[in-house]
Amino acid sequence: MTTAAKPYHHGNLRESLLLAAEDLLAQRGEAALGLREVAKAAGVSHAAPYHHFAGRDELLAAVAERAFVGLADAMEVAARVPDPHERLLCICEAYVEFAQSRPAPFRLMFGPVLGKKHEHPDLRQAAERAFRVLVQAAVEYSPAEGAALALTGWSLAHGLANLLIDGAFDGLPISVPEASVLARSMAYKLLGAPR
Amino acid sequence: MTTAAKPYHHGNLRESLLLAAEDLLAQRGEAALGLREVAKAAGVSHAAPYHHFAGRDELLAAVAERAFVGLADAMEVAARVPDPHERLLCICEAYVEFAQSRPAPFRLMFGPVLGKKHEHPDLRQAAERAFRVLVQAAVEYSPAEGAALALTGWSLAHGLANLLIDGAFDGLPISVPEASVLARSMAYKLLGAPR
Repeated sequence: MTTAAKPYHHGNLRESLLLAAEDLLAQRGEAALGLREVAKAAGVSHAAPYHHFAGRDELLAAVAERAFVGLADAMEVAARVPDPHERLLCICEAYVEFAQSRPAPFRLMFGPVLGKKHEHPDLRQAAERAFRVLVQAAVEYSPAEGAALALTGWSLAHGLANLLIDGAFDGLPISVPEASVLARSMAYKLLGAPR
Repeated sequence: MTTAAKPYHHGNLRESLLLAAEDLLAQRGEAALGLREVAKAAGVSHAAPYHHFAGRDELLAAVAERAFVGLADAMEVAARVPDPHERLLCICEAYVEFAQSRPAPFRLMFGPVLGKKHEHPDLRQAAERAFRVLVQAAVEYSPAEGAALALTGWSLAHGLANLLIDGAFDGLPISVPEASVLARSMAYKLLGAPR
């Protein structure tokens, strides 16, 4: 995903700014992310980002929205698995893999910006699309308790993702399997073995 | 937990500074937390915090450690429940309740400071004590798969806690039960109904 080594293509300024913003986010954290810093990183004038973002909040929301689109896309690919049990497992694995491959945007997506999703309709829509993929798969697996299963699966995948990217399992006094094995064994605990 | 309305008692400067730091953290976020700000909030000289904390990293680690002690204490109280099934449930509920009652320290505890726990032995020790309460209860419930169950329960409680404090469930296109009902129903999905 990194773009640090190559110049930004300015045919699509907005996307270039968002890529530069995600790089900055990964390198220096959310607190360091501003329109001026992003303009500099993208090699455009200080004024250029204002053509696309009214201010810092809009920039952060757009970075989070773009990441939610990526998450929803990855979950949709996983949702193509034919078997309903395996499908739910793959969706949860895709969620954890997304967090591990893009930890900085993942943290941003579920930070304070999410609490303002009603001010950012595109962000809200992208977040809901990801959630709907999970709910649909959960309902297909278990029509009677799909919604409850979706909330539980989301919590499980979200907790595992966060504990992994925050290094909470490092140095624990028990042996911890690798992430993909963990995700699958946890999902089996929740869903039971394949039917 | 707030101390904003009453003066700090300086018989225990370190604890006063940590209380002031937790207030500041809740009000203004991690980025705004520094030794000078904490000294000012606690009504002591700028130099005073340096008697207890070598720098900002040590202050953040101490705030996180104090919060982990509070979490471990709450989990230990929950672990006194006699029935092993109910005990595990109560520990997970205590975890989620802790996050909801002290969201700012909870975020700090699992932020970048946790990745540096090897530089802060007291923080590491407090975090491990909390984890051991959970592992012991999981082993007592299921000797054969206690460790795996502990990691799964931790992930589930951690995900639910984070999604709740981040407002991820707000405005979802499905109805979401209140937190304590959610925590219990999710744990039942994982553990089965009481034996």
